[in-house]
Amino acid sequence: MAAAEPMTANSLAVDVRKVEGDVTVARRDDVAIEEPLEIQLCSASAEGAAARSVAVTMRTPGEDEELALGFLYSEGIITAGTRIAGVSRAGEPDPATGERNVVRIELHAGEPIDFARLERHFYTTSSCGVCGKASLDAIRVAGARPLHDVTVTFARDVITAMPGRLRARQRVFSKTGGLHAAAAFGPDGEIALVREDIGRHNAVDKVIGALLLEGKLPAHGLGLLVSGRASFELMQKALMAGIPLLAAVGAPSSLAVQLAQEFGMTLIGFLRAGHFNIYAGGERVA
Amino acid sequence: MAAAEPMTANSLAVDVRKVEGDVTVARRDDVAIEEPLEIQLCSASAEGAAARSVAVTMRTPGEDEELALGFLYSEGIITAGTRIAGVSRAGEPDPATGERNVVRIELHAGEPIDFARLERHFYTTSSCGVCGKASLDAIRVAGARPLHDVTVTFARDVITAMPGRLRARQRVFSKTGGLHAAAAFGPDGEIALVREDIGRHNAVDKVIGALLLEGKLPAHGLGLLVSGRASFELMQKALMAGIPLLAAVGAPSSLAVQLAQEFGMTLIGFLRAGHFNIYAGGERVA
Repeated sequence: MAAAEPMTANSLAVDVRKVEGDVTVARRDDVAIEEPLEIQLCSASAEGAAARSVAVTMRTPGEDEELALGFLYSEGIITAGTRIAGVSRAGEPDPATGERNVVRIELHAGEPIDFARLERHFYTTSSCGVCGKASLDAIRVAGARPLHDVTVTFARDVITAMPGRLRARQRVFSKTGGLHAAAAFGPDGEIALVREDIGRHNAVDKVIGALLLEGKLPAHGLGLLVSGRASFELMQKALMAGIPLLAAVGAPSSLAVQLAQEFGMTLIGFLRAGHFNIYAGGERVA
Repeated sequence: MAAAEPMTANSLAVDVRKVEGDVTVARRDDVAIEEPLEIQLCSASAEGAAARSVAVTMRTPGEDEELALGFLYSEGIITAGTRIAGVSRAGEPDPATGERNVVRIELHAGEPIDFARLERHFYTTSSCGVCGKASLDAIRVAGARPLHDVTVTFARDVITAMPGRLRARQRVFSKTGGLHAAAAFGPDGEIALVREDIGRHNAVDKVIGALLLEGKLPAHGLGLLVSGRASFELMQKALMAGIPLLAAVGAPSSLAVQLAQEFGMTLIGFLRAGHFNIYAGGERVA
């Protein structure tokens, strides 16, 4: 990019013309970085360790290893019991950022990988009838466990305070306005960790990957706060991580509500200072 | 869904508990529908017409045929010259919505389909080095033509008026708060068409599919307004449709800016009443 400058962590300064009425001023401004990340999976075997490409996602660089691990976990490809031999970088350095945009997860010899599940992932629900119900069935097959029996509760005051606490912790959003955030928080309202990304699914994968690295999955005692809307995909990720409550600043979708009902999760939407809507699992709101 | 009721076009009434301070009230509320859609491509040949699954996307029902056509067009799989024999529905009716969630695009016998490109799509940038530059190269290979020579201009007043005009035309957002919108508009500020979806890439695909059906692609004389942020993916879709200007209510990403610079597009971000930022292609702003 002609306007490129030395990078900060995950934003880039570019030339911008700001138009306000008849006035235009030239300025430098920060935009969130978006670059592809390839996730590779590799299992040592008698024939050697062949790396296989699992997914490419457009993400904001930073915590890429967590992103890769969280993605594999939330897709049911690895579990908390999977023995990981190493996590490494591969590929050529990106000319723009200097980062190498491939993360390779190497499993211990003998760890099973369900490569058929990888295939199914790319065609997601197409193999199962193509409707909302079939989408819910598919995540059950992927290993999702219902959370009806998880009894943690969160006080109303804790829930309504979370968006403000998240904003206080967001590092890049205030500069670029371009990043989604996801945060894991406890019943006491303490934020366990925050991750940001241009893709909201990536922000959630980073949170889940970090929890996995800390040995905290399944995370039955945590809630997950997301800065955007609550989609089926985000609910699925929270469910796979065993997180019983998802609170979204924005609106939920119909299939997010169905998923929460069917798997015993709490779904909160339109969370703003002082008020929110409960779409499922109200018994966890004290 | 236990709380399901007869559907409106693309929203569903669900039971919700509204919490405000210490007060909780039970209400019915509308959420945007999210259901999977499978896109199939089918080319008649001597061996008969075998349908092949191209993609599954989570979308809001409505204008599904446009979505399928727009997706195939913006991925470079079909062009304005491709002879389409028919567009039909397949699959079982969805128990929740009654819709059949498969759209099958049938091409005339002899129309070539680059199935290798379909494969490349699923691994997008993984085959090309995995960096932002490689992502830009990949869309050139997919048939994107630079737009430097497209000379249409849009007045500042027209641009700043667009978010208000879009909101006035959005049908579902006001009810559910859950839908993204995309609109094609002319230099006179007239909105040619608006499409809504829970996925912003779907809303843009619907616009492109509608333009294709109207014989208006490439759409060198139109701008595209999107309700969210400007990502690489949305810029790519606009570029493939020949739309020289994309205006986003939210922030652009670094790779969206790079794409606009490299392919001669105009990129506007943070478009609010009275002001906006120009990140590339300012010569089209009069």
